[in-house]
Amino acid sequence: MALPHATSAQPIDIQPLGTRLASARTVALFKATDIEVMRLILLAGSSVPPHKVAGDITIQCIEGKIEVTAEGRSQILTASQLMYLSGGALHSLAGIEDASVLVTIALRTS
Amino acid sequence: MALPHATSAQPIDIQPLGTRLASARTVALFKATDIEVMRLILLAGSSVPPHKVAGDITIQCIEGKIEVTAEGRSQILTASQLMYLSGGALHSLAGIEDASVLVTIALRTS
Repeated sequence: MALPHATSAQPIDIQPLGTRLASARTVALFKATDIEVMRLILLAGSSVPPHKVAGDITIQCIEGKIEVTAEGRSQILTASQLMYLSGGALHSLAGIEDASVLVTIALRTS
Repeated sequence: MALPHATSAQPIDIQPLGTRLASARTVALFKATDIEVMRLILLAGSSVPPHKVAGDITIQCIEGKIEVTAEGRSQILTASQLMYLSGGALHSLAGIEDASVLVTIALRTS
């Protein structure tokens, strides 16, 4: 069942999923005019192949451990770590441990 | 001492500050082309008066408890809760318990 997207000023829970992580699915939390936010589920051994988006993004690890490859290097993100990637930067993600990740995308409209 | 701003693909720690919260200061974590992120320290009893910014923003409570007034209502955000506010929405923030908050601002350049 798809969750309804949040609206402006509506609180959204982003607690770690813990034992529910293994059966969770990636969800879009909301899409506004300038920003879109999703919670990405990236289980150990799974990956998101190299891709890029027009606008800047932030990647915040909520739980688990992922590897982010971008800007010519691969780096680990663990819980409570954040990075941004410049718009247009080719990047790939890999789950090192079962992880959930908050991804915020700046939507470039011009 | 000002922290140097993070660059693209550089991990940034956003763990709760815990006992260091009471003496911490608001810091800008980075400013990219489309997105700016800061960690706002909002101690109990302190507030940010009503204001607005052009682009959409997200407000994520890392620790503590804040009250967000916007869109005609006041709501509590606690640790691991997030909300977005539409660009141009008048909003104010108040610390209910000592809190640190991740604020992501979409920079509208057009």
